[in-house]
Amino acid sequence: MVTSPVVNTYPLSSYTFGTKEPKMEKDTSVADRLARMKVNYMKEGMRTSVEAILLVQEHNHPHILLLQIGNTFCKLPGGRLKPGENEIEGLKRKLTSKLGCQFTCSCARLAEIITLDEYVIVKKLIEHTFISTKNVMAIGECVAIWWRPNFETIMYPYCPPHITKPKECKKLFLVHLSEREYFAVPKNLKLLAVPLFELYDNVQRYGPVISTIPQQLSRFQFNMITT
Amino acid sequence: MVTSPVVNTYPLSSYTFGTKEPKMEKDTSVADRLARMKVNYMKEGMRTSVEAILLVQEHNHPHILLLQIGNTFCKLPGGRLKPGENEIEGLKRKLTSKLGCQFTCSCARLAEIITLDEYVIVKKLIEHTFISTKNVMAIGECVAIWWRPNFETIMYPYCPPHITKPKECKKLFLVHLSEREYFAVPKNLKLLAVPLFELYDNVQRYGPVISTIPQQLSRFQFNMITT
Repeated sequence: MVTSPVVNTYPLSSYTFGTKEPKMEKDTSVADRLARMKVNYMKEGMRTSVEAILLVQEHNHPHILLLQIGNTFCKLPGGRLKPGENEIEGLKRKLTSKLGCQFTCSCARLAEIITLDEYVIVKKLIEHTFISTKNVMAIGECVAIWWRPNFETIMYPYCPPHITKPKECKKLFLVHLSEREYFAVPKNLKLLAVPLFELYDNVQRYGPVISTIPQQLSRFQFNMITT
Repeated sequence: MVTSPVVNTYPLSSYTFGTKEPKMEKDTSVADRLARMKVNYMKEGMRTSVEAILLVQEHNHPHILLLQIGNTFCKLPGGRLKPGENEIEGLKRKLTSKLGCQFTCSCARLAEIITLDEYVIVKKLIEHTFISTKNVMAIGECVAIWWRPNFETIMYPYCPPHITKPKECKKLFLVHLSEREYFAVPKNLKLLAVPLFELYDNVQRYGPVISTIPQQLSRFQFNMITT
């Protein structure tokens, strides 16, 4: 049989939530947002944005963490890349700035920070399993790509034919959370854990991008951890 | 940057279409179908079905091959696995029986058919690149999994909470076509190439499974070949 990629999902109660200074929206209206998009497009070309799907479980059903602005609008954590910025690094930067997330320090990165003598010791200790690199969240699979053909709100999961200069490309990544995480939520936002069954077929409430996340995640096998 | 998996798509005109004997539907109504499903469930347990997404391109936009029954209902080629059957082998069997598809003969399979002496010669010729195994279609990525909780038409892209005994699990696989293929279409069916933009957001016409294929394929990069 074909094995589906496995995603560990931990209970919402494993995670700790605090607050941080408000992160205000840059625009006060959709029209302002589209106008700013146009100005940026003139300067920098196509906008590339990256968003994170953070999964938890409750009652053995996967839930997605969404940021709620006011009482209605929900969005995935993420944002716009700087020109030329790497997608993974950009998404880490956005998750750090928006939710105070911390990411795994790879051995390669560690080698840049500490001295060679220290690195030899650390490596030996890891090999002898006396210590391990801290298991923190990691950016995983790209699960969807959406295209904005014009300076309008409508986006498509393909670049429409005859559109040679799309205005935005938005990529959604699965983020693998570890057993323990701390999220610092900006004071003007709420972080909600929304079950897949609430998102599914609910384009009215969540829009076309978020409401089809259940379909995009269907190929994964969720390993519900109940510790 | 993260590289998307690449899918080669060839023009519809690269492919040849013929006809074969009719493949009649086993049921004449939805009620009959659900009743047969129930009988089979009692005998064999949860039904597992596999379906194929066959991609071609026209005007540089991806199109999916759908089988049309009568003037309205469209379905993906595929069907039910035999109890214990491997998913990939089962989908190959279904594509062979429904569309006369041919699949790559693996070296292991070849070794079963020909004598050891012949195999040694073939292997030497392949190593010296005098010959190559024929490049024909291959079953690729699982892109979606749908669940039927009850003996009803409704399916979900997750197993709903509190459903411990789902009645069907349907898996959709991307099938990588080669540059040339021959499809033998049963005389009672029509094979249509439907563009992604026609499927998208068109649940009324294509149902929830087929109408969200564009979202599930959005993470792939289509290499449009125009030979």
